[in-house]
Amino acid sequence: MNDEAFMRMALELAARSAEEGEVPVGCVITLEDRVVGTGRNRREAGKNALYHAELEAIDQACKTLGGWRLWQCTLYVTLEPCPMCAGAIVNARIPRVVFGAADPKNGCCGSVVNLFSLPLNHSPSLEKGLLEAECASQLTAFFERLRLQRPRRRRWPGRQEES
Amino acid sequence: MNDEAFMRMALELAARSAEEGEVPVGCVITLEDRVVGTGRNRREAGKNALYHAELEAIDQACKTLGGWRLWQCTLYVTLEPCPMCAGAIVNARIPRVVFGAADPKNGCCGSVVNLFSLPLNHSPSLEKGLLEAECASQLTAFFERLRLQRPRRRRWPGRQEES
Repeated sequence: MNDEAFMRMALELAARSAEEGEVPVGCVITLEDRVVGTGRNRREAGKNALYHAELEAIDQACKTLGGWRLWQCTLYVTLEPCPMCAGAIVNARIPRVVFGAADPKNGCCGSVVNLFSLPLNHSPSLEKGLLEAECASQLTAFFERLRLQRPRRRRWPGRQEES
Repeated sequence: MNDEAFMRMALELAARSAEEGEVPVGCVITLEDRVVGTGRNRREAGKNALYHAELEAIDQACKTLGGWRLWQCTLYVTLEPCPMCAGAIVNARIPRVVFGAADPKNGCCGSVVNLFSLPLNHSPSLEKGLLEAECASQLTAFFERLRLQRPRRRRWPGRQEES
């Protein structure tokens, strides 16, 4: 399988979050083209600040592989990681990160700051914008639907200018 | 109870981690002087990159309070938070953070970067250096003992110049 196929898998996970009223974000971690962890955003239903897609996938990958160093893995995520998730990627020593849509308000892989370029313990390589249009439109559609249901509550920040 | 008493509680949690061969870091979260979450570093035994003291305490506090917004809580931690934990504090909307020892190599509350001063969703207030000498010496003692047992494996980075 290739990068695009794993990102499509992450998009499917994100779609399941959207169906449950969660901001659609999905994540897949692979080791030599084998999926070792998956996650999706469950913050609202789970009532927990830690229930982001990447943390769920990293937790699962550590359990699958029996260690905290995911040093040969690739992480695919539909939305640019927040500071917590970018930090978890550094802590888990993941060498390669591929994301879809940028997050101008909270993204810490180049938007607000690039944590991977700071002199921390580890600097993952970064590929931005894989299936960007699909990842961004999934988020836009979710926030537009939410706006129709509950006006003025939540917005997808990256699309404010366009909406 | 006051700040110092909660930091001493965090130091006791950290001491339990040290006894188990883990880097000693402890964390306590309070709401109106009531403890709603505690955590300690368990990364090695747990074989998981997410098993930091702050994440454990935030997870517990979300469960205790039944929501992801810990917006009236104070977080006490013996060591300056790493990027993952500083990001989790932002995500959980914790308004006040008190830490003991600085972490020059991985700290993201002023040492490598200050995530709380970036234009993210939330900016916690920050108090540094509470019981700093005790928090730092607990770490130094742990890494010195480790060095005697297993030379050249792990170091407490903040004390490199002194050792």
